[in-house]
Amino acid sequence: MTDNAAPDIASQVSAGTRSGHQETSAVSLPDRVEIVEVGMRDGLQIESEFVPTDTKAEILNALIDAGVRHFEATSFVSPRAVPQLRDAQEVLEKVHKRAGVVLGVLAPNRKGVENALRSKADEIVVFLSATESHNTKNLNRPVEQSLRDIEEIAEQLKDHPIKRKGAIAVAFGCPFEGDVDLERIKTIFGHFARLGFDAVTLGDTTGMATPRLVRRTVEALRADHPGMKISLHFHNTRGIGLVNVVEGLRAGVTSYESSLAGLGGCPFAPGATGNICTEDLVYLLDEMGVDSGIDLRALINVAQRLENVIGRNLPGQLMKAGPRLHLHDYGGAVGAVG
Amino acid sequence: MTDNAAPDIASQVSAGTRSGHQETSAVSLPDRVEIVEVGMRDGLQIESEFVPTDTKAEILNALIDAGVRHFEATSFVSPRAVPQLRDAQEVLEKVHKRAGVVLGVLAPNRKGVENALRSKADEIVVFLSATESHNTKNLNRPVEQSLRDIEEIAEQLKDHPIKRKGAIAVAFGCPFEGDVDLERIKTIFGHFARLGFDAVTLGDTTGMATPRLVRRTVEALRADHPGMKISLHFHNTRGIGLVNVVEGLRAGVTSYESSLAGLGGCPFAPGATGNICTEDLVYLLDEMGVDSGIDLRALINVAQRLENVIGRNLPGQLMKAGPRLHLHDYGGAVGAVG
Repeated sequence: MTDNAAPDIASQVSAGTRSGHQETSAVSLPDRVEIVEVGMRDGLQIESEFVPTDTKAEILNALIDAGVRHFEATSFVSPRAVPQLRDAQEVLEKVHKRAGVVLGVLAPNRKGVENALRSKADEIVVFLSATESHNTKNLNRPVEQSLRDIEEIAEQLKDHPIKRKGAIAVAFGCPFEGDVDLERIKTIFGHFARLGFDAVTLGDTTGMATPRLVRRTVEALRADHPGMKISLHFHNTRGIGLVNVVEGLRAGVTSYESSLAGLGGCPFAPGATGNICTEDLVYLLDEMGVDSGIDLRALINVAQRLENVIGRNLPGQLMKAGPRLHLHDYGGAVGAVG
Repeated sequence: MTDNAAPDIASQVSAGTRSGHQETSAVSLPDRVEIVEVGMRDGLQIESEFVPTDTKAEILNALIDAGVRHFEATSFVSPRAVPQLRDAQEVLEKVHKRAGVVLGVLAPNRKGVENALRSKADEIVVFLSATESHNTKNLNRPVEQSLRDIEEIAEQLKDHPIKRKGAIAVAFGCPFEGDVDLERIKTIFGHFARLGFDAVTLGDTTGMATPRLVRRTVEALRADHPGMKISLHFHNTRGIGLVNVVEGLRAGVTSYESSLAGLGGCPFAPGATGNICTEDLVYLLDEMGVDSGIDLRALINVAQRLENVIGRNLPGQLMKAGPRLHLHDYGGAVGAVG
């Protein structure tokens, strides 16, 4: 060993203490989780070129064959607002249901709910945003009004044997207002719980979630409503979507929403990523020993097909690199030195 | 609440047990970590268009201004093998050093080391691959021969006041051979330790690391050599590079290698991502309360500049989306419903 003339910041850091950020919470991972595939709704909705109804249904059917059991399959929104999803009714008709498959649909208002109730949907997803500015942009009304609308929808659904899920957009931060007061999330979450919803999704609409926020939010909501099912919907807009999933797993959450091939962007950041990618998520879960019931190779095939349909490079990594033991011919391409 | 005709797999999963994967290791995070910026070496080396020497130095200087203190700045490799780095000597001359800055350089052999010793480098990085096939591809010799070469290099460096770091490529998996026996990593790591190296980097050369592998590998090496500094060099080829960083943090590792803007690809997966992205990593660390000493906004500016220099879209997310509290005008763009 020799001395080094340069100040040795590296080894100082290396020898640094590891105090400070003690974690007091769960340190086990779930054995099994549910993945809710949202690509054909959240992923597709911003695509301007219409994807044929048969293609949408074929992708959903291929995903069911790959083991996916829960979907946000389409939306009963105004065809003028989202022309891509104007075929909601027909798409659902063409899906080959089988035992255990849950076809969820988004419904923004009573009219959407009515249409959904006349469809083959198994679950209706009702949403609002946690902040006034985002809710006004998205639903053109104050949060208070949306909460009343949801009460009416709950009444409308009262005698129907359909699952109902609430979704809270910008739950981890708002692109207009920044940090969102946890009390707002607790209030909205409690509203869904009181109205008998089966689950609530926390939407990380523009990718502002962080591990600390995930932990704090999940723990606070679970303390208030221990029996209520929480689903986490992360975007990878800032590159840490899967880190947030792992924090969710550590906090005991067993339901995650993701999009095939990572389809879907962020309206506030051109070129940035939107939804976390389903096959990358399944790969991670597989490697952590958490069962999703989904066959990774089959899923990658569907993702590659979707990329062909969309006609441009999508964010998913696994469909480019393959699973980790997808080996290469020793006589093949070589990297540069190092 | 109503019954649902469809089998309710979702709530079965949700109610599932959370047993199984007990973790027995450290549950605190380091207060501070070191980031080793490798973009101007590992990132640039596969770029076919030569980046002018002044531009390389300007980027390094801007990174120093942003707070980066440790670099793998260039490589003393054959100019025929990697023409992009033929200006190693000149680049180092143009860097404005300041207290605490460590300029590391890669040296593949004795000749490279000689050249490095005549340069302004503060640290020499000597490498080999953990598997025979990858080492043959990369260095054209068996691992045994590379271990002897490293002994000679250690002898060559004996009276020089320069830091020396060992790097083990394909430490978490080999694209030709798959899983790598941990005993091989332990043997090579021990070799560097016995020869008095200051640190060893574990290279995830083609993005095959997983949280479990990271944990197992770090714990095994630390058990053998508690005083030896470990650095982790992850690629994001399969989308989980930052998840692996978090597992490294949980295992107490305080040094991470990354590349500005995520520059650098994977020779085995066209279009796939290579090195994890420095500014995305700094964002994550900031949000987890782990200090890297780097100013995120300044770093993003340098990343955007690098993207302009390279002239194509690079993988970094933060430079597209901005930090999470980079707010948007309420009158601005809106997302589609939901």
